Amino acid sequence: MEEFHVSTSRQYQVVDITAKVKEIVRKSGVKEGICLVYVPHATAAVTINESADPEVGNDLLGALAAMVPEGKWRHDRIDDNAAAHIKAAIVGPSETIPVKDGQLLLGTWQAIMLVDFDGPRRRRVAVQIQ
Amino acid sequence: MEEFHVSTSRQYQVVDITAKVKEIVRKSGVKEGICLVYVPHATAAVTINESADPEVGNDLLGALAAMVPEGKWRHDRIDDNAAAHIKAAIVGPSETIPVKDGQLLLGTWQAIMLVDFDGPRRRRVAVQIQ
Amino acid sequence: MEEFHVSTSRQYQVVDITAKVKEIVRKSGVKEGICLVYVPHATAAVTINESADPEVGNDLLGALAAMVPEGKWRHDRIDDNAAAHIKAAIVGPSETIPVKDGQLLLGTWQAIMLVDFDGPRRRRVAVQIQ
Repeated sequence: MEEFHVSTSRQYQVVDITAKVKEIVRKSGVKEGICLVYVPHATAAVTINESADPEVGNDLLGALAAMVPEGKWRHDRIDDNAAAHIKAAIVGPSETIPVKDGQLLLGTWQAIMLVDFDGPRRRRVAVQIQ
Repeated sequence: MEEFHVSTSRQYQVVDITAKVKEIVRKSGVKEGICLVYVPHATAAVTINESADPEVGNDLLGALAAMVPEGKWRHDRIDDNAAAHIKAAIVGPSETIPVKDGQLLLGTWQAIMLVDFDGPRRRRVAVQIQ
Repeated sequence: MEEFHVSTSRQYQVVDITAKVKEIVRKSGVKEGICLVYVPHATAAVTINESADPEVGNDLLGALAAMVPEGKWRHDRIDDNAAAHIKAAIVGPSETIPVKDGQLLLGTWQAIMLVDFDGPRRRRVAVQIQ
């Protein structure tokens, strides 16, 4: 297993981590298998989508903000970030991608992205290939 | 593969199953790999988020209830639980977690939770570690 | 790894691909493990839910259409399909299912479904079993 860190700079932020994951896949030497990308956080998530146009990530953040409004939840009484928890649970903390011929089987318009719903924070990403 | 059952007592309920999954990981003897937690149900799901404050789970149920209102769907004509199916499809029937040093790589605030959208029912959970 | 293609005929469409995936599992000879079903696309997704009543899939499409309205996003200025990207990111490009006794551990009401949010298109599905 390999790990790396991503430091976000905004409260809501999408960060393309494809290059880092590809490098770990290459170094692993695995030719065919699966690659699990996982964040051990309850207010961040991993998703796969287009990053060529960074507005796709911003649109995702905007859509989730409309679906899960801030400041109206029970957990907000304890820690003022309930919406971040809800969004992270819906998007999920991981993605699993096939590895073929030593490479991730990502489509032309697919990038692996860390989504921070409660930044800025230093986020940890674990990559397990097998 | 190991399995266990969870009996829910309410229509909408979040149940922390982390301890059961951790026990299965320990017994497996696997030191590094992945752990798949899967529910073979169409109206329940698995998610990962905070359970230290149980209101996070209640907030998730509340947010999904607002996003997917009850009783306005085509499947309701056949079986009055369409909203439960839609929510289960969005949250998803599984989570995959890395195993490192013989332990789940869960973050401090991450718990594995079964979410029942159509209880009370006896739910089956499968855990595959490799 | 095995692959197959699905040609969709409508803009929004749910296609049951369970039979194809089951055939690949059978041919693989794997008795116990996991099966990853993955679409290398940014406007399609994979989900697991009931297909015995095809209205469940239509309800899922309807619920996502209500959650993510068309035509109000930044990416629409570049390519008029931002809602499709957002929905695909939320539902996700993959599902992972346990394999037991040489068979997928699907529940009675669970089917594996490709969801196209930007059809009609020819979609590629990769299946990795290990």
